[in-house]
Amino acid sequence: MAERILVQGNEAVGWGAVSAGVEAFFGYPITPQNEITEWFARELPKRGGVFVQSASETGSINMLYGGASTGRRVITSTSSPGWALMQEGMSCLANAELPCVIVMVQRAGPGQGTTRHAQMDYFSVTRGGGQGGYKNIVLAAASVQENADLVQLGFHLADKYRNPVVMLTDAVIGQMAEPLELRTLDLGPLSPKDWALGGKGAHADGKRRVLSCGQGQVPLEPYTTYLQFIRVLDQKYRTMQEQEVRYEKYHLEGARLVVVAYGYCARVSKEAVAQARKEGLKVGLLRPITVWPFPYQALKDLALGGAGFLAVEDSLGQMVDDVKLGVEGKGEVHLLGMLARHADTDAGMILPQRVLQEIKKVYPGGH
Amino acid sequence: MAERILVQGNEAVGWGAVSAGVEAFFGYPITPQNEITEWFARELPKRGGVFVQSASETGSINMLYGGASTGRRVITSTSSPGWALMQEGMSCLANAELPCVIVMVQRAGPGQGTTRHAQMDYFSVTRGGGQGGYKNIVLAAASVQENADLVQLGFHLADKYRNPVVMLTDAVIGQMAEPLELRTLDLGPLSPKDWALGGKGAHADGKRRVLSCGQGQVPLEPYTTYLQFIRVLDQKYRTMQEQEVRYEKYHLEGARLVVVAYGYCARVSKEAVAQARKEGLKVGLLRPITVWPFPYQALKDLALGGAGFLAVEDSLGQMVDDVKLGVEGKGEVHLLGMLARHADTDAGMILPQRVLQEIKKVYPGGH
Amino acid sequence: MAERILVQGNEAVGWGAVSAGVEAFFGYPITPQNEITEWFARELPKRGGVFVQSASETGSINMLYGGASTGRRVITSTSSPGWALMQEGMSCLANAELPCVIVMVQRAGPGQGTTRHAQMDYFSVTRGGGQGGYKNIVLAAASVQENADLVQLGFHLADKYRNPVVMLTDAVIGQMAEPLELRTLDLGPLSPKDWALGGKGAHADGKRRVLSCGQGQVPLEPYTTYLQFIRVLDQKYRTMQEQEVRYEKYHLEGARLVVVAYGYCARVSKEAVAQARKEGLKVGLLRPITVWPFPYQALKDLALGGAGFLAVEDSLGQMVDDVKLGVEGKGEVHLLGMLARHADTDAGMILPQRVLQEIKKVYPGGH
Amino acid sequence: MAERILVQGNEAVGWGAVSAGVEAFFGYPITPQNEITEWFARELPKRGGVFVQSASETGSINMLYGGASTGRRVITSTSSPGWALMQEGMSCLANAELPCVIVMVQRAGPGQGTTRHAQMDYFSVTRGGGQGGYKNIVLAAASVQENADLVQLGFHLADKYRNPVVMLTDAVIGQMAEPLELRTLDLGPLSPKDWALGGKGAHADGKRRVLSCGQGQVPLEPYTTYLQFIRVLDQKYRTMQEQEVRYEKYHLEGARLVVVAYGYCARVSKEAVAQARKEGLKVGLLRPITVWPFPYQALKDLALGGAGFLAVEDSLGQMVDDVKLGVEGKGEVHLLGMLARHADTDAGMILPQRVLQEIKKVYPGGH
Repeated sequence: MAERILVQGNEAVGWGAVSAGVEAFFGYPITPQNEITEWFARELPKRGGVFVQSASETGSINMLYGGASTGRRVITSTSSPGWALMQEGMSCLANAELPCVIVMVQRAGPGQGTTRHAQMDYFSVTRGGGQGGYKNIVLAAASVQENADLVQLGFHLADKYRNPVVMLTDAVIGQMAEPLELRTLDLGPLSPKDWALGGKGAHADGKRRVLSCGQGQVPLEPYTTYLQFIRVLDQKYRTMQEQEVRYEKYHLEGARLVVVAYGYCARVSKEAVAQARKEGLKVGLLRPITVWPFPYQALKDLALGGAGFLAVEDSLGQMVDDVKLGVEGKGEVHLLGMLARHADTDAGMILPQRVLQEIKKVYPGGH
Repeated sequence: MAERILVQGNEAVGWGAVSAGVEAFFGYPITPQNEITEWFARELPKRGGVFVQSASETGSINMLYGGASTGRRVITSTSSPGWALMQEGMSCLANAELPCVIVMVQRAGPGQGTTRHAQMDYFSVTRGGGQGGYKNIVLAAASVQENADLVQLGFHLADKYRNPVVMLTDAVIGQMAEPLELRTLDLGPLSPKDWALGGKGAHADGKRRVLSCGQGQVPLEPYTTYLQFIRVLDQKYRTMQEQEVRYEKYHLEGARLVVVAYGYCARVSKEAVAQARKEGLKVGLLRPITVWPFPYQALKDLALGGAGFLAVEDSLGQMVDDVKLGVEGKGEVHLLGMLARHADTDAGMILPQRVLQEIKKVYPGGH
Repeated sequence: MAERILVQGNEAVGWGAVSAGVEAFFGYPITPQNEITEWFARELPKRGGVFVQSASETGSINMLYGGASTGRRVITSTSSPGWALMQEGMSCLANAELPCVIVMVQRAGPGQGTTRHAQMDYFSVTRGGGQGGYKNIVLAAASVQENADLVQLGFHLADKYRNPVVMLTDAVIGQMAEPLELRTLDLGPLSPKDWALGGKGAHADGKRRVLSCGQGQVPLEPYTTYLQFIRVLDQKYRTMQEQEVRYEKYHLEGARLVVVAYGYCARVSKEAVAQARKEGLKVGLLRPITVWPFPYQALKDLALGGAGFLAVEDSLGQMVDDVKLGVEGKGEVHLLGMLARHADTDAGMILPQRVLQEIKKVYPGGH
Repeated sequence: MAERILVQGNEAVGWGAVSAGVEAFFGYPITPQNEITEWFARELPKRGGVFVQSASETGSINMLYGGASTGRRVITSTSSPGWALMQEGMSCLANAELPCVIVMVQRAGPGQGTTRHAQMDYFSVTRGGGQGGYKNIVLAAASVQENADLVQLGFHLADKYRNPVVMLTDAVIGQMAEPLELRTLDLGPLSPKDWALGGKGAHADGKRRVLSCGQGQVPLEPYTTYLQFIRVLDQKYRTMQEQEVRYEKYHLEGARLVVVAYGYCARVSKEAVAQARKEGLKVGLLRPITVWPFPYQALKDLALGGAGFLAVEDSLGQMVDDVKLGVEGKGEVHLLGMLARHADTDAGMILPQRVLQEIKKVYPGGH
């Protein structure tokens, strides 16, 4: 039977990466993800892996690029201001089709904002920040266990598609402690990384790729035109949308109101939904596990079944757009955003009672 | 009568900025916006203004920050890879509520992509790239004259809202030549910049702002809590959405199909719409001039009137999401994206014939 | 009579800048200079100036560039890792001949090293780091009062020569508290900044400069060839070397051994010299106040008079090269470097007793 | 017999790296080193290696860091403005003791200066730019063959000392074409890279290093105090100074005047020396091959033998300081710097005739 230990969500990221056979971590400390950096510093070298503390997130993302290009399983971790510094690098990694995992523990912005939790980077994470409209698979964890499991899944999907994968989480999940089952997921076989640097003369075929993030002075091999390259990306993104959508259903059967939430807000919302059910309201929760690709079809089906929707997110309104894009006007869509934070202190979270209150307010036909 | 000269779209940016009383330009050369940098280098110093060539776009955006904080009318200009490097700075400018204008001439990505035109940065421009989900007003020019006029309008709105404004354009508009009427728009009065550095002892009131992009070691003055600050931003963004939506209507009366396009694709689409009208099809064009805030209500009204929609954009599909968000499932929404480029060469544009062909294909009830 | 207050060295930087009429501060917090950032955040806005917290030192130096180009008195402050990030910007500021003051509170390296004091950045500060072998005037403070006075002098010299000036200090000086006399130094008249952005049409002469950091797409005005530009720089640097050398003499009369030290090591050495004098040793101290230009001639004169030399610096040996370059083999030159730190803790300083011990060891003819 | 091919100096860098078994190149195009980037883009993938075009030199140096930390033989290449952007990364690489090779093709500064040759970055290359006073071994090539050979030697020394090595060259050497003998130098055995990421379970000893560039949140393993770490660096640098000094002697026997020059200036000077010898002057050339460590002792010996010195370098005077530090006042030291460029055009070099003229001018006892 698998071992269970009590750890923080941020530490679980490390355990998940080790289960996935991570070989190198590159990162720079930033609140509220510091426990991730510290975990890799302490634990990875003992296990034969490499830990590198960069001097900035611009450094981290380029180290990740360097490490990924040698064919290694590499990871970095950051929070929102660091994420902004990684935007050019992310776009270049997408262009070079290099597999890697970026863990993103959201905090509040804009600018340096506060060091506390928030969910304000949904757009730049799911729409491809920086330049060029590329796409990342974005996995959104809502528990300590998922912080570990989704990192494993992330490495697998990154290799499968030769694409960066973002594991999106937040400070509330990162700093809570829960039991973690140490387990290696069976995710199936992968092709050899024959596009990368090889050892011992194994790659005498002359087919190695130029890993370029530009067209011009260097060729865009193996593609011969820019449009050909874009078609390949487009096809890849379509395949992801068809095959990689993941979400959790909770009390969706017969729901007249569907709460949609990810990350810590999904946990808070689950509690509110459970209470609402106790009080006789037909309320359910749809929790996207992939926020890109987003479970549009599931939302549309629920809307066609007559449900209304309440998006709960700790921002001024970002994921709610994806809910609307899924629902396509077939049902009401409401938003409970960050202004609903409990205001006693700046650290005020959106609390279950507040979600319950909003559920009652927008419940179809009133309550 | 106003003077008219024949200039390129990129040069018109300079003329517009001068009409707006621009005081300093900070920028780094990048194709396809080089004519902008060159224009300011050549023309601004002669007019008493300052031209600074930065060493990178990270430099430009921070110089812009420095200049804006002294209360000057400042501008920068870049293209997509440079835009990515500006993401952290943009978010900090939004946090510090500093007025400035960023001209963004889109080129193809991801990574360094190509130096040619595209419309692939719509998401990071309209959703607030980097971190923190802030908002910029984004003005999208579709002619040489608009490249000048919208820069003027941009300076006005930036000052009015103490917020960065992005003037979004593309390489096709930037490199075409058309007659430009040199004119100073009458945009109404503005409040004095009493939040900035003053001269001559005028600011002895001790009320100057701390222009911070962080909370922590320095105060977030004049706000006392983070949530208070977010409420101010939220209210500002709502006001912009209520008061600043701008768009052009073309043959919308009785239209059964509405083409939605911005930038060069709007011009191409206009030609296709004109031809379709000649052929008896009830087709119109809605051209957003502000892509944020987006003309959602106008689209919804058209949808409620029975129209279908065709989004035409030179990307894999970004603005089409805003069309869907406006239409809310009240009408069909189709996309003609960058894979429809004429493929003879890499520089292939989406051409009017191709748009016309798609109009006929998706025209309600067939054709 | 001037007011005297008890402040830390880092805070004195702020008082000095205000006496010089500073208009804007741009900076990012980094230990051990945080009290400087905090002082400007708290005090400058009250006095009508602008405080901007950048998001990185790359940001700070470019904001400084932007602010300086508008003709304002601008300052930034950092410590060693931040200094490294400023290297490209420093070189561009030198190229554009823009006056500004950079306060540099040294800490230990390489890399991020420790947050404690050191004197390991002497070379990159005095030799022009980054690229291009430009020169900064570098003023080295050895007391709280000097932290204020040399910032004032720095602004004056920056304007006089249109050149960046570095005020070099360290964590020991920055964090000690001493009485500070609040005073405005009488440094003489300066030319108007007619090269910068002007107000109210005052600059209708069409002679404004292009503030470029490159040659190529933009002109290098007002110079017509690169070599002409280099001759101007060369002449400027020669004038500085002839006119701006400053140093303190302590017990140099008849000294057989001259200790040479700057910053905190000068204070430590002064104590040791006083003790050595009490013990009958003919020892003196030469303390460079400008470490560039360095007091080569004074050292040569002392060497020709028969003295030997002991360089005391908290590094592996950098300033000692300047001592040798001054002495030109006319006397013995010894080094007491950072390996002489008192090793009880990592924070170990070079202590007066240790300097005294070394004085006795290298004293000519023994002791 | 070894094959000989006719190539440019910049291309020879690639051939040398391949002979050394280079595994990955990370770099960004910049004049005048573009042929290096292009060579690796074209040739390295064919040979099973990885080529990555970064998006800036900040990217390159961090990719290099990432790649080096996995134990691979990695290289980057840049010119002066790019060098400035690498300063923080260089210092961190020195701190982490990671072997790698940086090829630096000097161009003129400060700022972006010109794209033409110069020798103005000697100080930041030899003194450790950025922060912390670390040291690189710096190899200075003066021929196409050396551009290849010294890259090989560089990789060997980098691994031997676990330290970055800079191969310093210039645009004149880089763009001239000469025959290159393709050869693999026999440089002796090296220790296994057991500090890095390993394959095949070979590293089960739990002794892997934390590759940190900071002290604080992460440990500075395997060192227990900062001072202990500095002692290790100090000892390493001393060993380099004792064992790795390399230089070329040309007509030094009985020389009354010794010209000291590196890079293209050494070639120009050699021609002048040959001519001077023909004319009966006792002139020789000492060409440092390692500019750090510098051949101080050789210069001192020559000075003690009665020689005078003429430093020839294409800067305002940098290497001349090292000549003075070697000579220690035992002989006259003159400088022929970049103001002696032939001024017909901006590209003006220091020409042999000009060196010969200066030789005659400063020749001891006149001529």
